[in-house]
Amino acid sequence: MTTVPAIHEADALVRRFETVRGLSLALAAPLSDADATVQSMPDASPAKWHLAHTTWFFETFVLRDHVPGYRLHHDRWPFLFNSYYEAEGARQARDARGLMTRPTLDEVRGYRAYVDAALVLALPDLPGAARALVELGCRHEEQHQELLQTDILHLLSRNPLEPALWPPAPKTPVAMPGPTGWIEGREGPVEVGHSGAGFAFDSEGPRHTVWLQPHALADRTVTNQEWFAFIDDGGYRDPRHWLSEGWAWVRSEEVEAPLYWQKRDGGWTRFGLDGRRAIDPAAPVTHVSLYEADAYAAYAGARLPTEAEWESAAAAHDPAGGNQLDAAGPVEPRPSPGGPAFFGDVWEWTGSAFRPYPGFRAVEGAVGEYNGKFMSGQFVLRGGSCATPRGHVSASYRNFFAAHQRWQFTGVRLARDL
Amino acid sequence: MTTVPAIHEADALVRRFETVRGLSLALAAPLSDADATVQSMPDASPAKWHLAHTTWFFETFVLRDHVPGYRLHHDRWPFLFNSYYEAEGARQARDARGLMTRPTLDEVRGYRAYVDAALVLALPDLPGAARALVELGCRHEEQHQELLQTDILHLLSRNPLEPALWPPAPKTPVAMPGPTGWIEGREGPVEVGHSGAGFAFDSEGPRHTVWLQPHALADRTVTNQEWFAFIDDGGYRDPRHWLSEGWAWVRSEEVEAPLYWQKRDGGWTRFGLDGRRAIDPAAPVTHVSLYEADAYAAYAGARLPTEAEWESAAAAHDPAGGNQLDAAGPVEPRPSPGGPAFFGDVWEWTGSAFRPYPGFRAVEGAVGEYNGKFMSGQFVLRGGSCATPRGHVSASYRNFFAAHQRWQFTGVRLARDL
Amino acid sequence: MTTVPAIHEADALVRRFETVRGLSLALAAPLSDADATVQSMPDASPAKWHLAHTTWFFETFVLRDHVPGYRLHHDRWPFLFNSYYEAEGARQARDARGLMTRPTLDEVRGYRAYVDAALVLALPDLPGAARALVELGCRHEEQHQELLQTDILHLLSRNPLEPALWPPAPKTPVAMPGPTGWIEGREGPVEVGHSGAGFAFDSEGPRHTVWLQPHALADRTVTNQEWFAFIDDGGYRDPRHWLSEGWAWVRSEEVEAPLYWQKRDGGWTRFGLDGRRAIDPAAPVTHVSLYEADAYAAYAGARLPTEAEWESAAAAHDPAGGNQLDAAGPVEPRPSPGGPAFFGDVWEWTGSAFRPYPGFRAVEGAVGEYNGKFMSGQFVLRGGSCATPRGHVSASYRNFFAAHQRWQFTGVRLARDL
Amino acid sequence: MTTVPAIHEADALVRRFETVRGLSLALAAPLSDADATVQSMPDASPAKWHLAHTTWFFETFVLRDHVPGYRLHHDRWPFLFNSYYEAEGARQARDARGLMTRPTLDEVRGYRAYVDAALVLALPDLPGAARALVELGCRHEEQHQELLQTDILHLLSRNPLEPALWPPAPKTPVAMPGPTGWIEGREGPVEVGHSGAGFAFDSEGPRHTVWLQPHALADRTVTNQEWFAFIDDGGYRDPRHWLSEGWAWVRSEEVEAPLYWQKRDGGWTRFGLDGRRAIDPAAPVTHVSLYEADAYAAYAGARLPTEAEWESAAAAHDPAGGNQLDAAGPVEPRPSPGGPAFFGDVWEWTGSAFRPYPGFRAVEGAVGEYNGKFMSGQFVLRGGSCATPRGHVSASYRNFFAAHQRWQFTGVRLARDL
Repeated sequence: MTTVPAIHEADALVRRFETVRGLSLALAAPLSDADATVQSMPDASPAKWHLAHTTWFFETFVLRDHVPGYRLHHDRWPFLFNSYYEAEGARQARDARGLMTRPTLDEVRGYRAYVDAALVLALPDLPGAARALVELGCRHEEQHQELLQTDILHLLSRNPLEPALWPPAPKTPVAMPGPTGWIEGREGPVEVGHSGAGFAFDSEGPRHTVWLQPHALADRTVTNQEWFAFIDDGGYRDPRHWLSEGWAWVRSEEVEAPLYWQKRDGGWTRFGLDGRRAIDPAAPVTHVSLYEADAYAAYAGARLPTEAEWESAAAAHDPAGGNQLDAAGPVEPRPSPGGPAFFGDVWEWTGSAFRPYPGFRAVEGAVGEYNGKFMSGQFVLRGGSCATPRGHVSASYRNFFAAHQRWQFTGVRLARDL
Repeated sequence: MTTVPAIHEADALVRRFETVRGLSLALAAPLSDADATVQSMPDASPAKWHLAHTTWFFETFVLRDHVPGYRLHHDRWPFLFNSYYEAEGARQARDARGLMTRPTLDEVRGYRAYVDAALVLALPDLPGAARALVELGCRHEEQHQELLQTDILHLLSRNPLEPALWPPAPKTPVAMPGPTGWIEGREGPVEVGHSGAGFAFDSEGPRHTVWLQPHALADRTVTNQEWFAFIDDGGYRDPRHWLSEGWAWVRSEEVEAPLYWQKRDGGWTRFGLDGRRAIDPAAPVTHVSLYEADAYAAYAGARLPTEAEWESAAAAHDPAGGNQLDAAGPVEPRPSPGGPAFFGDVWEWTGSAFRPYPGFRAVEGAVGEYNGKFMSGQFVLRGGSCATPRGHVSASYRNFFAAHQRWQFTGVRLARDL
Repeated sequence: MTTVPAIHEADALVRRFETVRGLSLALAAPLSDADATVQSMPDASPAKWHLAHTTWFFETFVLRDHVPGYRLHHDRWPFLFNSYYEAEGARQARDARGLMTRPTLDEVRGYRAYVDAALVLALPDLPGAARALVELGCRHEEQHQELLQTDILHLLSRNPLEPALWPPAPKTPVAMPGPTGWIEGREGPVEVGHSGAGFAFDSEGPRHTVWLQPHALADRTVTNQEWFAFIDDGGYRDPRHWLSEGWAWVRSEEVEAPLYWQKRDGGWTRFGLDGRRAIDPAAPVTHVSLYEADAYAAYAGARLPTEAEWESAAAAHDPAGGNQLDAAGPVEPRPSPGGPAFFGDVWEWTGSAFRPYPGFRAVEGAVGEYNGKFMSGQFVLRGGSCATPRGHVSASYRNFFAAHQRWQFTGVRLARDL
Repeated sequence: MTTVPAIHEADALVRRFETVRGLSLALAAPLSDADATVQSMPDASPAKWHLAHTTWFFETFVLRDHVPGYRLHHDRWPFLFNSYYEAEGARQARDARGLMTRPTLDEVRGYRAYVDAALVLALPDLPGAARALVELGCRHEEQHQELLQTDILHLLSRNPLEPALWPPAPKTPVAMPGPTGWIEGREGPVEVGHSGAGFAFDSEGPRHTVWLQPHALADRTVTNQEWFAFIDDGGYRDPRHWLSEGWAWVRSEEVEAPLYWQKRDGGWTRFGLDGRRAIDPAAPVTHVSLYEADAYAAYAGARLPTEAEWESAAAAHDPAGGNQLDAAGPVEPRPSPGGPAFFGDVWEWTGSAFRPYPGFRAVEGAVGEYNGKFMSGQFVLRGGSCATPRGHVSASYRNFFAAHQRWQFTGVRLARDL
């Protein structure tokens, strides 16, 4: 799973583990038992399930497999909280996760405490391979922290009362971004993919050479203001902009704007974790599908970047910079104060299908099911979002979703051939 | 709605109202916020929704319409908790009731308290028509009390942990019922339907004459023991017993036994509000669809009763007798101690489609949508069940469900032509 | 199947058989091989299938079962052309009938000739029971003659070219019918259902007493002119008129007018076997569902007749009168020249669910599957239509369709309580 | 559409046009009117539609747009026979193509004759751009010739009689291929994509550099014999081999073998245009999905080639060689007589998503919708099949289908990293 596992000192790894585990609880703190239980669509999971599944990961792959004498917290819970690991046996159907009103949210918190205590106790004596699994489990939990936020946002958006989970963050006025600038990319052979000592998911490697054609990338992502113009120009009604599948999707789903947008009193609003509010025209557009991103690019006479172009450009930037998640609260893309940024705010759709890199091999065993088996029917996104725990992404990080999905904080950066 | 509204003394009506309202809370007492929120299928509603919808009924048709100066508890909640009254405007889609994690169960309890206080305060001054609506609201809430139990049973049945809501009731050993006896019915003109001073739902009248052919009804309902034999004889695999729609249903749903039955260690078990337990062979079979009831009757060389035959026979029996709901707890059909009984234990499928009686006219206004508009695609059931609040049903009471539905406590009484 | 089978002289039965068989071929004469093969919806069958299935009926139940030494025309064809007789074994799925491009229409005509020759040869020596099956087969084929016409009409209606199968019939101007008159019905016990020497389908008996309440029936069916007013009055947009299932159907199917109606240049047109033409306001409305019929009745302050009311009134009329099918050609409901008529033009929806009469028992064997197993989820229609072979219907004849179906020639007669 | 249009001499182009048009008629010659009309699934089109749509292409883009005074054969037919060109206006829904029993097959043949005559007459005076469209129309028709064969095969496979369209071809005994050999591929920068004077579809260019990693390709495709072993080893029942989407597909569709395979009397058979016959173990496996191809590769410890690896290796081979379509008849993959072959027999799934090449731009106008808008949700296949008209494919040709589709002649070549 990890191409080069990170070897941690025990103390540091304990602190890392406790920090990650604590953030999950903080993100779920304002949730009621019911909020944490309901599943609003098959693509989303209940918050309670995220809290339990991430715990199951540590319990299964670290405690059960590496700690002699460890006793499962509950015999039947692995059935409930296995996500998709076929090697781990039968499990609750994905679209029926929301039927589990028991165990309660508090019982799941108890599960977390039980496993956390066992793991912190065991960690100093764990072999290196197991410590690598702890680090993997932390990374895995960070992924679910982002999903927990976007899944709960989706759930609350389906409530006619449109409840806010958090009070709104104070807004700092930011000047409207100027016209898009273009950053000329490298041409010829470049190396992409992870290598070296740091942590990476299996799909990020091996590092390998690709050949880039002459191209440029936009120096910022597309703004809400620009999206208003796309809508006003009939962008959602003109089939010439759209991929064939995208056009079928627009018509069957009656899509007219990004997800969570509604017109109220003549102006566009969006729903967020702080409720329904006016849209900031200067902020990056978000909650758009690959289809919308691709159609916008066609409308703008441009195209989406490939993942290699993106990575090649982003490698020079700080992956821990920008608007990413530092603490529980009302995340939202924000207008950029200026200067090119590649990380944070919104995941950027690329035009690249999520496929294995040359030389990719899945790890043996259940953990090996991590990414490889999802390598069909998905597009790669890059760069992290306002809901991504800071420190989680890097230039080589490959996120992926299906072309119609848009409940993540997804956005658009344009590219063009030179 | 009421053909002849019952005029109550204020004090008696207040006591009646408080009793009914109290029972709903007692039924929901063991539920967590999540238990009360999740919707396990489109046919079922969340317990919280039942608690709020019955409250909305009083708030809308009594307080809003008849109490000057009454202020709605919350402006948007009527949208959430209107069930199907088109005249009352737009409403939350039926299959999306389970997405409303807010208001919480406690907030809904607060809604109940607010409306209850207002109604008890207003009741002494209410005109007769409004008092009749209070009585109707109590009857309406009794219906939802039964649904609350069957809906929560369905939800818990979908949880792999199969949690029990209540401890099991103590079992009193009862002798196995003997062979079915046959009660000869009346022949020629008989009167059916409600008339007189008591309460009745609109669909129970007008009282009118029907002509019965020579027939007999079984003196008890079909037992689990008899159903074991039906299964063992291949009843679910022989198309000759089945209605065409029923056979299609058996095959597409892969039905092999009543709902909630599972074979464990070679014996049949059922899931109930007290968890999964062995089936009592002497008890009436329940959780069967009209299709299964009809197929069993064909297999047994009999048929289902018509609703007029049933009512004609049941009129001589005490509708408040038998195994009906007296208090919150683990309801379940029980073996009969002997003697013909027509009320309680299981709703008995009849072979009659739910259609209006001659001379039926819907009441004007929103309340008039009560039953009339459901008079297609449903079959009539009679007699009440173990989950029906005692006092709710009468010989003329018409319950109705679609032919494939079986999450209610539904059972089978045979009939035959003479 | 036949309650009292008709015993024919052999010669007369041969003539009867040949007449019926000839009409089917005439009805199909203008069809191409493709017209006769395509299935336009699961409810409809290809014309070729009708021609072959009716032949299979004679081959199976008469020749195979009663003629020693008869050799099947083709071993595999019974699999193709069995409709729904479970006792006759596996068969082509109903919704896949349109995939059978082979055998060709000409080969099916050859099948007909082969079976016809064998049957005419064998008929003089057939025992009475077999002769009764020949008569049943003729009745069965008459039913399919009507379906053949309505199924091909549906198919052609889905073709953007809207091809006409036949040239239009000459129109005789008829005065607009006056306001609806009301015929007072009988009250008290009346007998309905078939008895006596003539042919009848199993579901038409036994004859039995029913008790009618005071009521009246309209002296004619609802006209297109009246339906225009229903549409103009917003009938399709007002939920108060509709059954709950009907309202859901109107909205999900976006129904705004009877099937095959379209507004062209400001006026309503309909599609028929003679192509798309202007609607005659004086003619009976047709191609309406039970939902529409029921909603219209509610809008008109009336209700639909029960099947017993209808039969009681119709018994005095000539079932062979009115606008019924005499020969292949462009059938269509026509304005009545005057006087009450109960037969022909349009099948009249009743408010009665299709359920067995008291004392009904299915015939033993495969033929016994004829009607009984369809006795759920359907409403009864009475009186025959312009597409019903003259002589086929009687006062006791019970047709049945699901509440949403409307590709038959279905119409509306009003009733009211007195 | 053509990156570099081929300029033909008029005479040669007329001969080319007539040859192509003649082959379509020959392929359809054994079809009845019904065979040519029915649509067996939404992915397939009726043969009649293929014959008419290819004609519409010439009529619209050549005759209508470039021949002054040309009169459409029929005003409404463009609505019927436009496939997906949004710029050409509304059209018959794709899944309703099979409802058009009119025009008849003979009328469509008349349409072809009318358009052919007009085009041959006009061709000598057409400008170069229009001649390029004639060549494009011929290429387009060749694509539909392949689909016509695979669509009719699918239709006949759904007929319980399993009719053969053609007599079987004589079989030449061929020795079983030996073990797979491996051809080492080029490493480092290589050029792929079309350039130069010949014809190519828009998606084949621009020619550009890609960087290949060390790898080898199998010297032949996977055989039926090898697929028997995959089945016997439980390949269809072991989730470890499968992409997640593929595993869901296997289970929901209950896939156990390639399409058209059935076990009869203990041995595998396949259905083909010559009916159902025993499978030749030495022939390439065909009618497998991308999911199956990928799972087989995982099972075999290998992977699928990328399209660039394939093209780089295939460029040295004769694209007009191998088992491709020369004349109407019973096409089928055949055992290879020896030596590596890259063209014919089966389309080879690659692991590459169908996405635009760097610098790709869609042509302006309706013809520009040709390939670009399908560039999501599909995988690339290479090399042509036994049903591909010889001369149609080249090393740079990119075919594409969705990962679950397998009614084309699709097969598998393995690759591995070095």
